[in-house]
Amino acid sequence: MNRRIRFSSEEYEVRKQKALTAMIKEGIDVLIVSDPSNMAWITGYDGWSFYVHQCVLLTANGEVYWYGRGIDAAGARMTTTLSPENIIAYPDFYVQNPDAHPMDYLSGILTDKGLGNTRIGVESDNYYFSAKAMQSLQENLPNAEFIPATGLVNWQRNVKSAQELEYMRRAARIIEKTYERVLEVAQPGMRKNDLAAEIYHASIKGTEEFYGDYAAIVPLIGTGAEAAASHMTWDDGLLEKDSGAFMEIAGAYHRYHCPISRTIYFGEPTDEYRRVEGTIQDCIEKTLDWFKPGYTCGEVAGVFFENLKKHGYEKDNRCGYPIGLSYPPDWGERTMSLRNEDRTVLQEGMTFHFMPGLWFDDWGFEMTESVVVTETGASCLADVPRELFVKH
Amino acid sequence: MNRRIRFSSEEYEVRKQKALTAMIKEGIDVLIVSDPSNMAWITGYDGWSFYVHQCVLLTANGEVYWYGRGIDAAGARMTTTLSPENIIAYPDFYVQNPDAHPMDYLSGILTDKGLGNTRIGVESDNYYFSAKAMQSLQENLPNAEFIPATGLVNWQRNVKSAQELEYMRRAARIIEKTYERVLEVAQPGMRKNDLAAEIYHASIKGTEEFYGDYAAIVPLIGTGAEAAASHMTWDDGLLEKDSGAFMEIAGAYHRYHCPISRTIYFGEPTDEYRRVEGTIQDCIEKTLDWFKPGYTCGEVAGVFFENLKKHGYEKDNRCGYPIGLSYPPDWGERTMSLRNEDRTVLQEGMTFHFMPGLWFDDWGFEMTESVVVTETGASCLADVPRELFVKH
Repeated sequence: MNRRIRFSSEEYEVRKQKALTAMIKEGIDVLIVSDPSNMAWITGYDGWSFYVHQCVLLTANGEVYWYGRGIDAAGARMTTTLSPENIIAYPDFYVQNPDAHPMDYLSGILTDKGLGNTRIGVESDNYYFSAKAMQSLQENLPNAEFIPATGLVNWQRNVKSAQELEYMRRAARIIEKTYERVLEVAQPGMRKNDLAAEIYHASIKGTEEFYGDYAAIVPLIGTGAEAAASHMTWDDGLLEKDSGAFMEIAGAYHRYHCPISRTIYFGEPTDEYRRVEGTIQDCIEKTLDWFKPGYTCGEVAGVFFENLKKHGYEKDNRCGYPIGLSYPPDWGERTMSLRNEDRTVLQEGMTFHFMPGLWFDDWGFEMTESVVVTETGASCLADVPRELFVKH
Repeated sequence: MNRRIRFSSEEYEVRKQKALTAMIKEGIDVLIVSDPSNMAWITGYDGWSFYVHQCVLLTANGEVYWYGRGIDAAGARMTTTLSPENIIAYPDFYVQNPDAHPMDYLSGILTDKGLGNTRIGVESDNYYFSAKAMQSLQENLPNAEFIPATGLVNWQRNVKSAQELEYMRRAARIIEKTYERVLEVAQPGMRKNDLAAEIYHASIKGTEEFYGDYAAIVPLIGTGAEAAASHMTWDDGLLEKDSGAFMEIAGAYHRYHCPISRTIYFGEPTDEYRRVEGTIQDCIEKTLDWFKPGYTCGEVAGVFFENLKKHGYEKDNRCGYPIGLSYPPDWGERTMSLRNEDRTVLQEGMTFHFMPGLWFDDWGFEMTESVVVTETGASCLADVPRELFVKH
């Protein structure tokens, strides 16, 4: 068995059928799948090649093609079970060339296959499908009709299979180990990049059983006043005594993620840190029970935001999003959001990063959980102490 | 001085003027800069927030605005010198919401500023400017004219300033240290992820003087037969005796890159490995002299490809691309390419990843240099032995 094939052929078949059903419902004849997470979910394709244009094609009669750069076809042969004739490469001349676009070449292929004048689904707002890619298709295929299909495949990925949950649990083991390492080494006076180096080392080493894959987001480290910003990365600034720092990091296995954020305080935490710690602990606990089939994202978010308000805090951004298989720049699935307005109904096996981060004017606090929706409420994937870490 | 501001205000002014001159030449009234590398180059903005829509706006009268998600405005205040009123945030409701697009909101802002009916430049084929972003602008601003501006800012970045070259040299010190570590620890029987963990640790730790930033591409490790694929990442497969492995990795400092690839052989290299080693050494040496002002990319590539042919090898993909400031998914600048057809004339201070990788049916070989164009030919940024590494 090819070690690079990560799911059974039955599971890929189920996925393909799900995507097919969804695209046919939208009246789509050919779906152009550009999001690397969606490409991998349908075919298994894995490689850092999404910096050039590439896609998976799914036709209404069930054909699946990989389309990409010539030097990446070998990777497609290794990581998918597609037959060689379904792996189509474009010449290198089309790479990052202002005068020739990979979608020009793809248009020719679609035309050759008699698909140039059909209803073509495009992931208009997924990663790496640029405005120019759309323009190229429109100009080269004037008789095609283009159907927006952003998120069409992403939505099929919501409910995780047993194998997917197993990979996420392995990612959870990795993030647990990573935080153990953080607690061992983090101390005032340490350069932030040295902490990031330790986080990387622990999370890529993983455990003896489970190797660490790269996470779709680099370690986010917010220290001191910089913790007011939610997405800063490290430099060589020092971790400071009598100051807090949050880390937003994830374990990853076979591209499946388990993100967990925690905050660490160097010294005796201030009352404010302790108050927010207690608040978030209470709000998380009160909300976890609501991650049950039948409730909506909005209802879950409502419970959290209401409790937060009772404690005297407000948060004007969503408190979570679905997670699973992902590639940079985001480990979220970009479908539902845990916000009041979202009416999506939860189903068993959905997975979320429940993300009640709070960012104030001159500090910030993150304590989060990755959860699976079950009949009895949220099951937390990782077992990282849900508390403000303190190092003296 | 704010430690997060990485260039002098004079240097940012020069950059802005360059971009302004280029956009005015194209008849553009407002430029929407979506590529995170371009955003950073013009304003300094740094943060892992490019997974949501954001941009820098540059107007013909020299105003510069940052536009992004509410929770990222704090990061914009920390990493740029823009005045608070030039930092514009959109409500969180617009984040990954199928019913509301951040470009809808931006259209309102452009209209309010009297810019809704002007000639608007868009980076149609740069990262993160999606087909839907374009569609939103077109629908909301029916009286605007949209001018393609892909690469317009990227081209201004070609020639590096003294400060930029200094940051790239720091990145070079980091990649040198990283390879030292690779040679210490790599051995047959080691899991590939454990090697990746060491690469990360060394490259993020950096040196005592220079911290390691994250590279825009994760470590690419091609081992054994998998080295036939150019962009595979690691899993828990083992490094094998009597087998080769290439690494494509970079040092990074303040988002500036110095990529260097090397191949390592565990055991006594086969004649084939030695022959390719000698070939690439010779072809690199013969080509370095041509990285001089006045020659074209095509001429440099031609010298390389011709010499390669003399040795009996062919390569049907480009042998290099410009490098510098970058964010995932690519550390290239996406302007010129070292390929026969490219007529761009080299200038002093341009920087390239000279990338003569060869991928065969069942193995691959990479030995590359990051270079600066100077009057006397290429100056190599890093000093990593240009040879096939051998571990017994």
